[in-house]
Amino acid sequence: MIKKKIGSIISNTLIFSFLFFSNCEQKINQQTELNIEDTKIIKQLFDEALTSRETYELLDYLTNKIGHRLSGSKGASEAVEWTEKIMNKYDFDKVYKQDLFVPNWKRGDQEIVRIIDSNENLSVLALGMSVATPKDGIRAKIIEVERLEDIESLGRENIEGKIIFFNRPTDQRLISTGSAYGGAVDQRTEGPSMAAKYGAVGVVIRSIGTAFDDVPHTGVTRYEDGVKKIPAAALGVKSADRLTEELKKNSNIELFMKMNCKTLEDAPSHNVIGELTGSEFPDQIITIGGHIDSWDVGQGAHDDGSGCMQSIQVLRLFQKLGIKPKRTIRAVMFMNEENGTRGGLKYAELAKKNMENHLIALESDAGAFTPRGFGVTAEDATIEKFRSWLPHFNQNTINFIKKGGGGVDINPLNKTLGTPTVGFIPDSQRMFDIHHSPNDIFSSVHPRELELGTASIASLIYLIDKYGL
Amino acid sequence: MIKKKIGSIISNTLIFSFLFFSNCEQKINQQTELNIEDTKIIKQLFDEALTSRETYELLDYLTNKIGHRLSGSKGASEAVEWTEKIMNKYDFDKVYKQDLFVPNWKRGDQEIVRIIDSNENLSVLALGMSVATPKDGIRAKIIEVERLEDIESLGRENIEGKIIFFNRPTDQRLISTGSAYGGAVDQRTEGPSMAAKYGAVGVVIRSIGTAFDDVPHTGVTRYEDGVKKIPAAALGVKSADRLTEELKKNSNIELFMKMNCKTLEDAPSHNVIGELTGSEFPDQIITIGGHIDSWDVGQGAHDDGSGCMQSIQVLRLFQKLGIKPKRTIRAVMFMNEENGTRGGLKYAELAKKNMENHLIALESDAGAFTPRGFGVTAEDATIEKFRSWLPHFNQNTINFIKKGGGGVDINPLNKTLGTPTVGFIPDSQRMFDIHHSPNDIFSSVHPRELELGTASIASLIYLIDKYGL
Repeated sequence: MIKKKIGSIISNTLIFSFLFFSNCEQKINQQTELNIEDTKIIKQLFDEALTSRETYELLDYLTNKIGHRLSGSKGASEAVEWTEKIMNKYDFDKVYKQDLFVPNWKRGDQEIVRIIDSNENLSVLALGMSVATPKDGIRAKIIEVERLEDIESLGRENIEGKIIFFNRPTDQRLISTGSAYGGAVDQRTEGPSMAAKYGAVGVVIRSIGTAFDDVPHTGVTRYEDGVKKIPAAALGVKSADRLTEELKKNSNIELFMKMNCKTLEDAPSHNVIGELTGSEFPDQIITIGGHIDSWDVGQGAHDDGSGCMQSIQVLRLFQKLGIKPKRTIRAVMFMNEENGTRGGLKYAELAKKNMENHLIALESDAGAFTPRGFGVTAEDATIEKFRSWLPHFNQNTINFIKKGGGGVDINPLNKTLGTPTVGFIPDSQRMFDIHHSPNDIFSSVHPRELELGTASIASLIYLIDKYGL
Repeated sequence: MIKKKIGSIISNTLIFSFLFFSNCEQKINQQTELNIEDTKIIKQLFDEALTSRETYELLDYLTNKIGHRLSGSKGASEAVEWTEKIMNKYDFDKVYKQDLFVPNWKRGDQEIVRIIDSNENLSVLALGMSVATPKDGIRAKIIEVERLEDIESLGRENIEGKIIFFNRPTDQRLISTGSAYGGAVDQRTEGPSMAAKYGAVGVVIRSIGTAFDDVPHTGVTRYEDGVKKIPAAALGVKSADRLTEELKKNSNIELFMKMNCKTLEDAPSHNVIGELTGSEFPDQIITIGGHIDSWDVGQGAHDDGSGCMQSIQVLRLFQKLGIKPKRTIRAVMFMNEENGTRGGLKYAELAKKNMENHLIALESDAGAFTPRGFGVTAEDATIEKFRSWLPHFNQNTINFIKKGGGGVDINPLNKTLGTPTVGFIPDSQRMFDIHHSPNDIFSSVHPRELELGTASIASLIYLIDKYGL
């Protein structure tokens, strides 16, 4: 008897589970009346992105064939050439470069940080823009601190001649990992300079990230003018835990640091730009961008190969679907976001010089994860207008328009010309596990998540182009 | 000159990027007035889940120490014992089991599917509940079809004696991958029975999934009463592509199939239940559940170890934070969702028999990914009430309450007693890459995504318990 029932039981099960899943395609807010043509075009944008997977294909080439792309490197030059070639191949209306100079920092040979007493090498990466140690390295006692203020409290008598170890973890309670990152990153950006002021000879920091592994995360540090530059490096989180453990046992242990970085003369480089010329208001410019440079580890997949490839693909989708934008739409590969923002600054400088009319600029530089929203720096009426478009998006993609947003590369445009800015906000949970680390590689990108980002950005840009701000 | 500016440029960059990220913690809709105590408690639930990571720890044990847990297997028995032990260790008010019998299907030795002409073994898994081939296997020509209806059109004269190859891909255009799955799964559930009716001797299907790899996905098939049972297996997507390629070259090629499955007598098994007894309305029951059984490949991490561990943790979070629920809250580990729903049916049967009063039931069985929403089968007023709670959630977690939702294990309760049901809806993009496959393993679960699920469910249950429906 029991056995006989399996058939119908399983059948019920399947019907239920099908209903459950098929309902998921519903929209958030069906009461708003939507323009039918817009609905149709937005569906086409998503369909084309999800089935062609061309963002993913391009990113595969950029990351696996070209690799990482630090400003001034061979990879960066190749990426400039290749993106120009790709956009020419797509036959965009205009493809051109903007010339600029970029900082030219080199990591040099693999850095070494060793606990001398236990003869234990730690997992480490020099911070970007750090100076080298002397050739034979340095050796010093360690002072562990949590905050920049601790340096002041401890004072020169405790800091001088020591290696400072910044070990404040990112706050796992924050739901946006970007906020967690933002709350910890001062250790990396300002820590070395602060420690140097009080006579420290070197700095190591706990990597600014969310994973509990031993992969170190690099990123830029900034030396204040007039302060002696000291070498600074990031430890993997497990290595930071090991170091603090050893320090608890014996506060007199010493650290050996050997780093081989150097900063060469500024190097010539470029922003790369592709355009679809507007049919009605060609002088009104809508910028979509990412940064083509990356750190010199991993492959710069999420940060920010994905944002660049998405920007190119927005134009490609318009072309493919025969959408003729009223305004001029630009895909911009900004150079040097990571250690200087020279590309973003040059772009704003030229916009001002050429008296360009910039309607709005959007940046995708928060990873290639499933879309969740957009952050918008604009007048309230614009933000409300964007919110009225939310019902166009499937509830599994864009759910919110929040006030405030932009990107490192487009913020200079806002500052110079007052251009409104938009930041694309994907799901943040995995980003800071891999950000600025050897794990930011192509295989950590999910094709559908990446393409949903492309289509979400394309849809917003389509609506902005059609209806204005 | 250019070099000197780096400092201040980088400084601006960092300020911008910090502002950008810190704004992300904003709520969706700040105009709604929220109860301050609720806001505080919901924050505590998220804080505790994200910092303790106890859901993740439990899931680590379940998947890595116990492993997969098909109904009737040693793993399933161990999981029953272990979850009972864990809930006793937490000292929940009541911990007990419900007795039931489950189908007892065994895969047997590794199945073989080979293209005879090219002597090429394909990547394959028998479908759950499939019968074996004869000991020496079967060998037959192949008919490739896309839809169940094709079988009817082709008719007995074309089908008899053949192996039918269902090769309709999942629709990548659907944004919810659950919908894509739902639109393709009839090939697996009904395909073999349909083919058998017309005299086919075996069936292979293209795996129902979203990834373009060669990992096969199993899952239940259903034989209609009175139809001769024929062996059925799923091919990896790349293997399916290989097979169709060979068929295009020569439609007369033959396939060899050898499968070793058997179905034993039904086995005794259990649902496992932990309870916090309600302080005001102990007879009103709120069920939170997942299914403790899994397929016999991989580790049943997303499907559905995570849902079970989340259910236990909701009670643990309440306990830890001193939340005394007014109603009785049950964490239920349902047995046998995958191939019989015996656990869900037994639970509903006993609820009816014991004249229990079930307020609502929630299931988490759609993966351990970042929360996006809840689907609710209840009266409109309840759905509106739940929507009024949305501002309690950070915009990076729960964004919507949609009409319609539940779960395979709690749907019988709805059918039997009319109990409202809720399905937890996480991001779906990665789920069907790994669902029912050897890739559904612990390392594919992200700790923060999992814990955000736990906290989101706990928050909704907290509000339901406090305010009712």
